[in-house]
Amino acid sequence: MFDSGLGGLTVVRHLRRLLPQESIVYLGDTARVPYGSRSPEIIRKFARQDAYFLAGRNVKYIVIACNTASAQAEPDLVRRLAIPIMGVIEPGAATAARESAGGRIGVIGTLGTIASGAYQQAITAHRPEAEVLARACPLFVPLAEEGAQATMAARLITEDYLAPFRDAAVDSLILGCTHYPILEAVIADALGPAVRLVDPGRALATALAGDLAGRDLRCAGQDEAQQQYFVTDRSARFQELAERFLGHRLCSPVEQVDLD
Amino acid sequence: MFDSGLGGLTVVRHLRRLLPQESIVYLGDTARVPYGSRSPEIIRKFARQDAYFLAGRNVKYIVIACNTASAQAEPDLVRRLAIPIMGVIEPGAATAARESAGGRIGVIGTLGTIASGAYQQAITAHRPEAEVLARACPLFVPLAEEGAQATMAARLITEDYLAPFRDAAVDSLILGCTHYPILEAVIADALGPAVRLVDPGRALATALAGDLAGRDLRCAGQDEAQQQYFVTDRSARFQELAERFLGHRLCSPVEQVDLD
Repeated sequence: MFDSGLGGLTVVRHLRRLLPQESIVYLGDTARVPYGSRSPEIIRKFARQDAYFLAGRNVKYIVIACNTASAQAEPDLVRRLAIPIMGVIEPGAATAARESAGGRIGVIGTLGTIASGAYQQAITAHRPEAEVLARACPLFVPLAEEGAQATMAARLITEDYLAPFRDAAVDSLILGCTHYPILEAVIADALGPAVRLVDPGRALATALAGDLAGRDLRCAGQDEAQQQYFVTDRSARFQELAERFLGHRLCSPVEQVDLD
Repeated sequence: MFDSGLGGLTVVRHLRRLLPQESIVYLGDTARVPYGSRSPEIIRKFARQDAYFLAGRNVKYIVIACNTASAQAEPDLVRRLAIPIMGVIEPGAATAARESAGGRIGVIGTLGTIASGAYQQAITAHRPEAEVLARACPLFVPLAEEGAQATMAARLITEDYLAPFRDAAVDSLILGCTHYPILEAVIADALGPAVRLVDPGRALATALAGDLAGRDLRCAGQDEAQQQYFVTDRSARFQELAERFLGHRLCSPVEQVDLD
């Protein structure tokens, strides 16, 4: 699994719960995080370097935890690598399309994810009559990274970003960035209990379990699953941030690597 | 001049005003911005690549517009290159030390700038009895990038970050990040008119004019000064962001380059 940084650890959480027997090699491109406001060309370049690193670790499957990289680089990676690849967009969109009561679906994400139109296309492919409203929320990533999700400022910013979704009376909202589950409480407060929040990381874990079984790639061994973590930079706040996204103590070794 | 991204254009503004006859080659590492929360090792690596790129353009002087790169990488670059180099820390610290009425000086900046202690050391070198209070304000960069400086959320975040400076009754505050002049109004409101705000970009322009003259490097020609802009990524919002920091329309050509 690779991610632009540490947000993908929210996806690791779902994978470990659902597929505890599978070993995970995680790469976080912390030297170049965030990807969300960069151009499609640069995101594809970075995602290629991330995926080739994982290919070199001899993985059986590549998961793109980062929504921006899934939205901008997944087709390019599928063309280039013979290893099966799954991003978060398709499972997130399929879940929202299936579970939405009235077909009024909202999507929030980075500038890059929203501008790509990837969620919008994937939802309407599953449910052509769906009405999709999408909006970039660029301040959500820094708010989650600063642990400011419970502040009044976060509440004001969230209400401002989500007002169009309330006005449009969406029944579901896709949290289209790995950081957004950290803000789930304030997002739920802003939209009210009638709006279902869809976490693409959780949807991916379910879809991956099915695809691994379908490809006969499920790990059947009795050996304990391993976690290996690689990052391209290790800042002073690495441990604190990693544990916020992972949801528990990070005990596995973490190695720093250079991708370029 | 190099910067982690486009914030350094606030420094270009001061340079063009004070030294209109000097041509500027600007490099913004927009593919890897921001530098502020990365490790010192990675910042030094990126700053080396930035400086070598400028050296290859045959510049007579290198200005480090980025406070984080100045704080973490300036001594390393001075050792490596024979071209004169000036960062924003020393002129910013010298100005604050000289102009502070009571020697109670505050510094705000990125996590990297504040953790380095560079401003704190430079201020006490100029004024040993000064009391220096420093604090990182990581949400200021995304607020400035989103143009959210006039929102109620920005006001709340600013009051929260600056409360310790008000409690300590500082008489001056160094805006130790190229993005912070964008937030000058809300920062001034939070601290009141008695606190002098020091912009290291402006201080650098004055110090650079003096050092160019001292080294007999001032441009005496009558030819019109040129501006050349290079970036490592050009996102959809490039033009909007560049003009916010530059303070006027960006008419010069911009070229995308690859540093690694």
